Amino acid sequence: MKYSNELLLLGKEAKEAAKVLASLDSEDRNRSLYKIAENLMVNKEQILIANKKDCEEAISNRLDDSLIDRIYLDDKRLSDISKDVITIAELPDPLDEIFDIKSLPNGLRIEKRRVPLGVIGAIYENRPNVTVDFSALCIKSGNSVILRGGKEGILTNIALSGLIRDSLVDTGVNKNIIQIVKSTNRDLVNQMLNMKDYIDLIIPRGGSKLVNMVASESRIPAITGGIGVCHVYVDEYADIDMAISIVNNAKVNRPSVCNAMDTLLINKKIYQELLPKIANVLFESGVEIRCDERAFNILKGHNSNLVVKANEDDWGMEFLSLIASVKIVDSIQDALKHIEEFGSGHTEAIITNNSYSSDKFLNEVDASAVMVNASTRFNDGGQFGLGAEVAISTNKIHARGPMGLRELTSYKWIVIGDGQIRA
Amino acid sequence: MKYSNELLLLGKEAKEAAKVLASLDSEDRNRSLYKIAENLMVNKEQILIANKKDCEEAISNRLDDSLIDRIYLDDKRLSDISKDVITIAELPDPLDEIFDIKSLPNGLRIEKRRVPLGVIGAIYENRPNVTVDFSALCIKSGNSVILRGGKEGILTNIALSGLIRDSLVDTGVNKNIIQIVKSTNRDLVNQMLNMKDYIDLIIPRGGSKLVNMVASESRIPAITGGIGVCHVYVDEYADIDMAISIVNNAKVNRPSVCNAMDTLLINKKIYQELLPKIANVLFESGVEIRCDERAFNILKGHNSNLVVKANEDDWGMEFLSLIASVKIVDSIQDALKHIEEFGSGHTEAIITNNSYSSDKFLNEVDASAVMVNASTRFNDGGQFGLGAEVAISTNKIHARGPMGLRELTSYKWIVIGDGQIRA
Repeated sequence: MKYSNELLLLGKEAKEAAKVLASLDSEDRNRSLYKIAENLMVNKEQILIANKKDCEEAISNRLDDSLIDRIYLDDKRLSDISKDVITIAELPDPLDEIFDIKSLPNGLRIEKRRVPLGVIGAIYENRPNVTVDFSALCIKSGNSVILRGGKEGILTNIALSGLIRDSLVDTGVNKNIIQIVKSTNRDLVNQMLNMKDYIDLIIPRGGSKLVNMVASESRIPAITGGIGVCHVYVDEYADIDMAISIVNNAKVNRPSVCNAMDTLLINKKIYQELLPKIANVLFESGVEIRCDERAFNILKGHNSNLVVKANEDDWGMEFLSLIASVKIVDSIQDALKHIEEFGSGHTEAIITNNSYSSDKFLNEVDASAVMVNASTRFNDGGQFGLGAEVAISTNKIHARGPMGLRELTSYKWIVIGDGQIRA
Repeated sequence: MKYSNELLLLGKEAKEAAKVLASLDSEDRNRSLYKIAENLMVNKEQILIANKKDCEEAISNRLDDSLIDRIYLDDKRLSDISKDVITIAELPDPLDEIFDIKSLPNGLRIEKRRVPLGVIGAIYENRPNVTVDFSALCIKSGNSVILRGGKEGILTNIALSGLIRDSLVDTGVNKNIIQIVKSTNRDLVNQMLNMKDYIDLIIPRGGSKLVNMVASESRIPAITGGIGVCHVYVDEYADIDMAISIVNNAKVNRPSVCNAMDTLLINKKIYQELLPKIANVLFESGVEIRCDERAFNILKGHNSNLVVKANEDDWGMEFLSLIASVKIVDSIQDALKHIEEFGSGHTEAIITNNSYSSDKFLNEVDASAVMVNASTRFNDGGQFGLGAEVAISTNKIHARGPMGLRELTSYKWIVIGDGQIRA
């Protein structure tokens, strides 16, 4: 494949800079992060001016309000972004970890030491905070990053990455660890996905279209994630109040994110009692319920605006909004079968007080996180105590589920001897 | 991409079977392994008959003796293969592991449980033992495998995989966890490298041509490894006798493998004393020494048959035979620069008694294993105590260095609550 000169130069510089970065100690990397946080506040005017142009362009192109809101920055949002950088600076250094230490009978001492991956390729959509977020996570974990954000926020992203690079220079660190693709030509994304010699891991952040494109086109290992078709199965042995509370939280707490519930599966032995109660709670938040036949027969009189019959597309659909599909299943076996067919391997939950049911569910469901009696909304790096979250991987290779700083690293084996040779 | 019907069927069957296998317990999987070991002995005649045909075909095609030797099986070799299966059966179950267990302040209990990857694609050259080895490793780790061996051993591989599948049937396990590509059409390899929906990880085993082809063509995550351009750097602070012993072992112990030394780097402050001594030991084993200018000036009178001037190709060359290149370097910095330029990221060693030198070497060398005062030959799953070795990865994604059974697994997050919802 032929690469653009811009991309090739970024790749070479990023790779070269990564070697230097890997040898910096914690304090050096943190000093740069604090400087970035400071400069985001000191130089906020230049960022806001660039952002204003992006927003004006977006308005003149008649983009959706929700899209413009994602690009938009103000003092408060910039301040939050700056605080996030400090939060990342204050996390433990992932490169300090030494593990799997052992002494062999021949006297060799063996251990693994964490090392950075090298160069991360970040392909994302419009939120400008991702530019800073990825930069900070990569600096903290000792990786270079090549940033390729959406074209709608390009001026903001260029301003932000320029500020970050200046902050690196201010603190004596090679600025080339942060690279931004300035051309908005979409061919460059495809080129990035082939740059095996320069990029070690691709992380897409955005909608399912972007993620699926990366998954199918990339020749570099890529994290596939962030697409959550999440089910809650309410077992016949569930506590009814707990089921109502968890289902409501899983759907309503933040419907636009990947760990929100999409489909509710209810055991046939309890649906007649449970479903009207759950529905009434969901209706209060304006949740539309798309029902299979049995569920529809129960709910049809309840709320004519919010109760509809499900069609085939409603199973396996990531709604990302106040919509849930509901299906009545004959058994846990049927629930597992539905999840296997329609789940995206992200987050699946069972509500039950029966240990046979919970064990079966935990063993058989193949997903990044499998939960008993807890809201799907907990599948999150912050909630799981990782400090920062790079992505939620639905891959099985390298890392699965919430990825923190550690998941941006590899390791090397260290072998210390005093003259050992192999027999 | 269009797939052959054969391959598509294998893929579907393997994927389906993997789900069943993942739910089998240790004893079930081990019972199958013991049966395979037994059947390899009981039914050895049918294997040897198939192997005789492969060997006759190879002879009539005038293949190299070394290649024919790789295909060839006899009672002793089959018996060794059978014993290897028992060794794998007796290893701890990688799927038993539960790790990163924590309790959160909100009462959630979180842990990670090891799970199989799913379907492994094994692409390898001629040795028939790889067919059995991969099958046993995958059964033990709960994965299906699609085997694609070299065409020179195809009849042997079909016989072996048939025997393995029969043994699975004998022990009540779905035989489709072991699949073999019977067509020797090379297009099928390319198709395998694109079958993202059916294969989770590709592991090539063979020469650098095969490994590099897989690395550059695969759209599925692939383990790149087994190519070792390994250096030993003898520092100015080295113990001379230790240096001689380690260099000799690293080169001569088994020159045909990836962790053998290829290039010897000697600090200029000690080469005049050290080089003649090392050379004399290497000459005893018939090692040809390809010298840079300074080394050549020292050795030119010593052994006219085995001392030659190095040319540019001798740096970064994996010799896989009794040849070593030797370069005199001015400093550890120059040694590190040479390794960075010419190493393959496999195994690098320093001989020194100076902790500044060893720390610098350990920190700055970017390789799967970095060693102080030990032979490069130790970079091996067996030597590192992993029990079995799948490959030696020079990737940084997923696994690096020797890969055992654990590296054929992923994990899922398990979350146990009693009604927790997210605020």
